[in-house]
Amino acid sequence: AATFRASEHQHIRYNPLQDEWVLVSAHRMKRPWQGQVEPQLLKTVPRHDPLNPLCPGATRANGEDPVTTLSSEPKPPEDKVMCFHPWSDVTLPLMSVPEIRAVIDAWASVTDELGAQYPWVQIFENKGAMMGCSNPHPHCQVWASSFLPDIPQREERSQQTYHSQHGKPLLLEYGHQELLRKERLVLTSEHWIVLVPFWAVWPFQTLLLPRRHVLRLPELTPAERDDLASVMKKLLTKYDNLFETSFPYSMGWHGAPTGLQTGATCDHWQLHAHYYPPLLRSATVRKFMVGYEMLAQAQRDLTPEQAAERLRALPEVHYCLAQK
Amino acid sequence: AATFRASEHQHIRYNPLQDEWVLVSAHRMKRPWQGQVEPQLLKTVPRHDPLNPLCPGATRANGEDPVTTLSSEPKPPEDKVMCFHPWSDVTLPLMSVPEIRAVIDAWASVTDELGAQYPWVQIFENKGAMMGCSNPHPHCQVWASSFLPDIPQREERSQQTYHSQHGKPLLLEYGHQELLRKERLVLTSEHWIVLVPFWAVWPFQTLLLPRRHVLRLPELTPAERDDLASVMKKLLTKYDNLFETSFPYSMGWHGAPTGLQTGATCDHWQLHAHYYPPLLRSATVRKFMVGYEMLAQAQRDLTPEQAAERLRALPEVHYCLAQK
Ligand SMILES: O=P(O)(O)O[C@H]1O[C@H](CO)[C@@H](O)[C@H](O)[C@H]1O
Ligand SMILES: O=P(O)(O)O[C@H]1O[C@H](CO)[C@@H](O)[C@H](O)[C@H]1O
Repeated sequence: AATFRASEHQHIRYNPLQDEWVLVSAHRMKRPWQGQVEPQLLKTVPRHDPLNPLCPGATRANGEDPVTTLSSEPKPPEDKVMCFHPWSDVTLPLMSVPEIRAVIDAWASVTDELGAQYPWVQIFENKGAMMGCSNPHPHCQVWASSFLPDIPQREERSQQTYHSQHGKPLLLEYGHQELLRKERLVLTSEHWIVLVPFWAVWPFQTLLLPRRHVLRLPELTPAERDDLASVMKKLLTKYDNLFETSFPYSMGWHGAPTGLQTGATCDHWQLHAHYYPPLLRSATVRKFMVGYEMLAQAQRDLTPEQAAERLRALPEVHYCLAQK
Repeated sequence: AATFRASEHQHIRYNPLQDEWVLVSAHRMKRPWQGQVEPQLLKTVPRHDPLNPLCPGATRANGEDPVTTLSSEPKPPEDKVMCFHPWSDVTLPLMSVPEIRAVIDAWASVTDELGAQYPWVQIFENKGAMMGCSNPHPHCQVWASSFLPDIPQREERSQQTYHSQHGKPLLLEYGHQELLRKERLVLTSEHWIVLVPFWAVWPFQTLLLPRRHVLRLPELTPAERDDLASVMKKLLTKYDNLFETSFPYSMGWHGAPTGLQTGATCDHWQLHAHYYPPLLRSATVRKFMVGYEMLAQAQRDLTPEQAAERLRALPEVHYCLAQK
């Protein structure tokens, strides 16, 4: 019997955070791809478009107030759009660290603001047309709900169970272990860790964690926020450099529930962000989560260790800025 | 307080089969779509392409035997491709009922054959480039595994729990209820029911169920197989007619586990097929399962009742055949 090699032999892995299994079939990467390629959307985005409702100073079809940079646009009570920058042609990795820091402060504020009333405040960014983003102006959304949604509910349960059995937060302990093993680390800084989780489903999925035990975004210290801005810039630069494209993804923050839960014991929670990017082979060939994945089990085509190694090796200077 | 209307008011629904929640936000359909549209791939497929390894008689690069229609091509032991027809330019709804019946017989045989050894035999079809299908020749795949994958595992648990509490199979009981309520029915026949489940996630998702308690595909009687072929032709014709396009989807069969489980008590199981089509608004505008869906909870943009009503109203004659 041959020795087991994760990069050669199909195997399954458990996701202890969301209580799910993933099938790892790294041998599939050896097959050539003959399927759909995405149209390359390299049309340049104008810096300012007076007809784009997310641009500052734009007039809206319905005569409502325009959105201003880093302000929040209330739609229904629980649904906001937050713009990252006055310009439409920049993305987070192309912004300065202080500009990203301002986004982090806005995330913390909106968590405080909506978290006063709602038990769950979901901050998420859909980046790129491939991720259903219908406006190129850099922005994220915040959807607050009066219930704990399904995925946070599963994270609540798993972290609660782990904490009651081990007396420590699951993700804090997991981060420590990954710092020792190193093979799945992408980036580390004084206050933050970025890694490809053992159970990653998307090809270049990452998990962003504070080193310290932190429950929610508003608790982050000024030093932790500055450091986070710098780590985000580095991670997103690596992502863009991987296929020399503005890397599409959905990302979002998970922290302890808010609303009436804010005062309750949430020590089992650890703040974290998930990055879920769809690209697999190039700027135009994505991973399709279809068939087997929809009917049987999540399935990935390269190991998390291979993904981490590739991301680690990439430069921290953006390919667009390096060419200048 | 206004009366609750599912088509107007955001609400959540529980999926008792897979133990998940879905957020229904039908008001979102009122928003115009400005995002990505899919390239229309209406390039005609040649009836026979001697270089396509899925065409009968084709020679393969590696000199292996070619695949013959409705035969199974062994790749690794647990991974097969099954062709539906000798021609590349037909799809299931364009085939005759006896041709579809032959596919059903092949599905039953492959379940018997692989089920002798493996506890789970996943038959699935990825149709269309949008669903990651890399070869237009009509075919499905069969992946067998030595473990019960995550989603069947959740279905096992839910059906087991329901059966032990109510003494009846969950899905048999659910089918009966939908036959009485009628609002989510798409098609019914002597032996089969097609409905948009109460908990559907994809815009036009359907569930195909036998009326009788059936554990696995091989148990279907000749009459049930003929009737299934006719129901499949009608359903897939409605799908194609919805946006006058060859409707993309992933579909697959779930039945009681096989292998060593075949003899065990599986009375809580009911055979069924899931159809997961991605299109939302037109042949080129799909639903994106991103951001909120990946981080918080599945979310749909029209109610299952609205989807069922639209599918019910569509003709059972294919738009391509009607034009002739
Ligand atoms: O094996 P195929 O058809 O090339 O691959 C397709 O189906 C697989 C099983 O659903 C998916 O994992 C792939 O992402 C998809 O492209
Ligand atoms: O509200 P948007 O940005 O138009 O919509 C986008 O994000 C939503 C939340 O993740 C998804 O439900 C939509 O499918 C997607 O297109």
